[in-house]
Amino acid sequence: MLAALSACRYTPDMPRDSTRRRAVYAGSFDPVTEGHMFMIREGARLFDRLVVAIGTNPGKQYTFTLDERLDALRRCTARIRNVSIDRFESRFLVDYARSIGASYILRGVRTAHDFEYEKTMRHINGDMAPGLSTVFLIPPRELAELSSSFVKGLVGPKGWPKVVKQYVPAPVYRQFLKRFGPKR
Amino acid sequence: MLAALSACRYTPDMPRDSTRRRAVYAGSFDPVTEGHMFMIREGARLFDRLVVAIGTNPGKQYTFTLDERLDALRRCTARIRNVSIDRFESRFLVDYARSIGASYILRGVRTAHDFEYEKTMRHINGDMAPGLSTVFLIPPRELAELSSSFVKGLVGPKGWPKVVKQYVPAPVYRQFLKRFGPKR
Amino acid sequence: MLAALSACRYTPDMPRDSTRRRAVYAGSFDPVTEGHMFMIREGARLFDRLVVAIGTNPGKQYTFTLDERLDALRRCTARIRNVSIDRFESRFLVDYARSIGASYILRGVRTAHDFEYEKTMRHINGDMAPGLSTVFLIPPRELAELSSSFVKGLVGPKGWPKVVKQYVPAPVYRQFLKRFGPKR
Amino acid sequence: MLAALSACRYTPDMPRDSTRRRAVYAGSFDPVTEGHMFMIREGARLFDRLVVAIGTNPGKQYTFTLDERLDALRRCTARIRNVSIDRFESRFLVDYARSIGASYILRGVRTAHDFEYEKTMRHINGDMAPGLSTVFLIPPRELAELSSSFVKGLVGPKGWPKVVKQYVPAPVYRQFLKRFGPKR
Amino acid sequence: MLAALSACRYTPDMPRDSTRRRAVYAGSFDPVTEGHMFMIREGARLFDRLVVAIGTNPGKQYTFTLDERLDALRRCTARIRNVSIDRFESRFLVDYARSIGASYILRGVRTAHDFEYEKTMRHINGDMAPGLSTVFLIPPRELAELSSSFVKGLVGPKGWPKVVKQYVPAPVYRQFLKRFGPKR
Amino acid sequence: MLAALSACRYTPDMPRDSTRRRAVYAGSFDPVTEGHMFMIREGARLFDRLVVAIGTNPGKQYTFTLDERLDALRRCTARIRNVSIDRFESRFLVDYARSIGASYILRGVRTAHDFEYEKTMRHINGDMAPGLSTVFLIPPRELAELSSSFVKGLVGPKGWPKVVKQYVPAPVYRQFLKRFGPKR
Repeated sequence: MLAALSACRYTPDMPRDSTRRRAVYAGSFDPVTEGHMFMIREGARLFDRLVVAIGTNPGKQYTFTLDERLDALRRCTARIRNVSIDRFESRFLVDYARSIGASYILRGVRTAHDFEYEKTMRHINGDMAPGLSTVFLIPPRELAELSSSFVKGLVGPKGWPKVVKQYVPAPVYRQFLKRFGPKR
Repeated sequence: MLAALSACRYTPDMPRDSTRRRAVYAGSFDPVTEGHMFMIREGARLFDRLVVAIGTNPGKQYTFTLDERLDALRRCTARIRNVSIDRFESRFLVDYARSIGASYILRGVRTAHDFEYEKTMRHINGDMAPGLSTVFLIPPRELAELSSSFVKGLVGPKGWPKVVKQYVPAPVYRQFLKRFGPKR
Repeated sequence: MLAALSACRYTPDMPRDSTRRRAVYAGSFDPVTEGHMFMIREGARLFDRLVVAIGTNPGKQYTFTLDERLDALRRCTARIRNVSIDRFESRFLVDYARSIGASYILRGVRTAHDFEYEKTMRHINGDMAPGLSTVFLIPPRELAELSSSFVKGLVGPKGWPKVVKQYVPAPVYRQFLKRFGPKR
Repeated sequence: MLAALSACRYTPDMPRDSTRRRAVYAGSFDPVTEGHMFMIREGARLFDRLVVAIGTNPGKQYTFTLDERLDALRRCTARIRNVSIDRFESRFLVDYARSIGASYILRGVRTAHDFEYEKTMRHINGDMAPGLSTVFLIPPRELAELSSSFVKGLVGPKGWPKVVKQYVPAPVYRQFLKRFGPKR
Repeated sequence: MLAALSACRYTPDMPRDSTRRRAVYAGSFDPVTEGHMFMIREGARLFDRLVVAIGTNPGKQYTFTLDERLDALRRCTARIRNVSIDRFESRFLVDYARSIGASYILRGVRTAHDFEYEKTMRHINGDMAPGLSTVFLIPPRELAELSSSFVKGLVGPKGWPKVVKQYVPAPVYRQFLKRFGPKR
Repeated sequence: MLAALSACRYTPDMPRDSTRRRAVYAGSFDPVTEGHMFMIREGARLFDRLVVAIGTNPGKQYTFTLDERLDALRRCTARIRNVSIDRFESRFLVDYARSIGASYILRGVRTAHDFEYEKTMRHINGDMAPGLSTVFLIPPRELAELSSSFVKGLVGPKGWPKVVKQYVPAPVYRQFLKRFGPKR
């Protein structure tokens, strides 16, 4: 079974056209954090094209609307020329990825616990779409604790805006103030 | 401190010339396994150029000679046009990577335990060379247990060649037989 | 304190009557997956009798009804002569196990994270019922990602039935189609 | 691929003759600890026959001689009627297990770190010998820290015999005193 | 950057007045368990003053009322002279800690999974309040599985009061009986 | 069994005299790193007296001599008034701790893997000396990768002194240059 893997018999199936190195970075982005921004910037360096896609699930509740999230992603990536923003619904990520011609899924991993989950998804996605590879990055130390739900968990206590501001890009910070700030 | 990361102020420092996507995949390769071959094939797809480099450490004992390991890598990658084989000694990996113009370090991660170690090295390397990114891949399930020392640990018991053969490319298998096979 | 464990003073408390090797494999089975089926087949080989028991919790919501789950288990184990299907409610697993004369609890462990939880339960159950041992199996690699909630999470995206079908036995697949399939 | 697993089509390949439930519990036993004794006692309850086998590796250094280790195992299991002691060399565990008609490998798992290793070996052994299953037990809390190397690491500091005595059966304690005790 | 840490240039910023060693042990205490009591007793030994504080979150549902929880803590710590009970709401723990003059946060860690979370919070809290240190204790083995939600999960099955009683102090046990016991 | 822990019956066995809060921070310190210095500074704040003790093991090889290590610790802690430097040999840490009147062992934990080991030692030490508590600190993120063996592993490649310098206090850096620097 493993024999088929033997490199010595390997023939590259086609010359790689670099414009084909297209990746998807998918998530809820509810909201976008500085951790996501790290991934997007690095993904834009690593791939020829990076599609940042909001996957929506009809049965799930979100804190920010789809429009708010799309808007935040667009504003935050406006200056990165090879990044585009998209959304998909009622489709498996691998099917969406293939439909836009992507050969890569980009994922961030922060902790050993994350890793177990990401390994599971990588194997499942590999079963569903053998030609699609998953590529992982580890965010820098100062972003290691950051997740959307972590940031949302900071809202409430006195002084929260100053704390939240550290972890999200400016357009998202404004969305937080608008949503959770003092009523005028 | 985190402000500098804000994506909205991000200006890509230069248009990416895709020929610059050069990566190093370094190790002892003592010996090359099918797990390494997975990484090399995937790395050759992901990057414009992949340099597979044997890092040698004067104070360390190896099972196979440097020449045997270089030879095995060359034979196993002969048909992958954008892979080259190299070696380095008495240098930090990040310094070697910069000296050959690489912007990426490629690493495989198999288990949560691996992950802790790889995260450490990613942070240290990021401190030493901020422009150099580390990119991770997870090998497929059937290679999840594979490491050079695992394979070497299989040598000895009756019937070992048949077992070892499953985990290494053919040129490495021949090296195993030559080194550990029955004396004539 | 450990002295009492010393094997050299050990006297087996009774000759083992092999018909006494009775085990319980308990869960919600909401729904039964191929991962559960691996455990049941292996449990049927390992023990003289295996009771597969659905533990129900009045305060919890299930996707499939108790009858659907009992029916699926019965159909899927119909040909394994030493397996029987049962249910219990408002009882600790250890109390249920003792009430049916079982000396073993059978559990599957997939990941290091699972393991932490299973270790906790094994210790608690050992405190509550010292004569009852917990026995663990690790499913094969290709089932390592499988859980009931994982399978339910696959429902929805276009093409889900083909994906779900890989992970559940045929009677469960039919239940999925009936519950979530296109309305006629 | 998973279809072949479907339980509904399952036909047990033969009536299980309970005398066939034979297991191997293998290790270096250098030395036997109370943790091993827990495994042996539980294994003797779970299986019809348990073979405790010392696997020796010609290239490895041991603290106690093979004869000392065999002697300790024999003394410590003398009263457990369905346990026998054996040794094997230059063979894979799975080959040894098959040669004595065992269908099970028995293993203890103490920590999440142990678990990663044991999962690896379970998969490899499953590849090499599909009919051989690995069964795991978790030792009780008070033995959770115990390993042969842990016990050997206790030798030296003033008062070590009293400490070592807690973790090993009496015959092994005497071997420790003889080997490391004050010279007369 | 790390240079500033060099101990050789270190000058203690002030003589430590031991009455300043004040710590906060915060949680929901819904309900207090024997695991919490271990932490409180140890904290009272380690610090000059230990403030056990219930942090409440307006959006969260609790099983026991704030008054019940405060009452239980007061009864259970009545004889430990340097412990006081408090509550805080709508504030970050670090802000609360500073407002009462505490220099330490006390935390318990039971498992590797706990540890990942606690490390995250320690770093975040260290960012928000550099002068505040987090100190960790590991509970003894027999309390390793204990958490408030674990104890609440025991309620229901026949015989639950006897089981719950083992894990909570007497005043909490009475609260459980009152809340969940048979209606008269 | 757990009853004895019940806090409500707790009577503090004696008024705590704060001068009794004495802790031991033990290790090989081969060599002292900035990670150790973090622990020492924090330990000096937390305890009334901190004894930093080099435990030596006759059978082990060290990179730096005992005198070099004692000298480095003395220089690096010269200005911290409540820290003293000591050594012990051929004794269990808990016996040494009791001999100098310490009630606490101080330990650093960096990763989940560290944690498993530290938990083991905490339980063993708690068994051997019930009155002795182990207190844990987590170093800041930028020291999370640091260990003595990590620093020694940096020696060799071109430019190593600049790298090593970041991780050790100045007196240790001078020892590194003396030991491994270019021969004149």
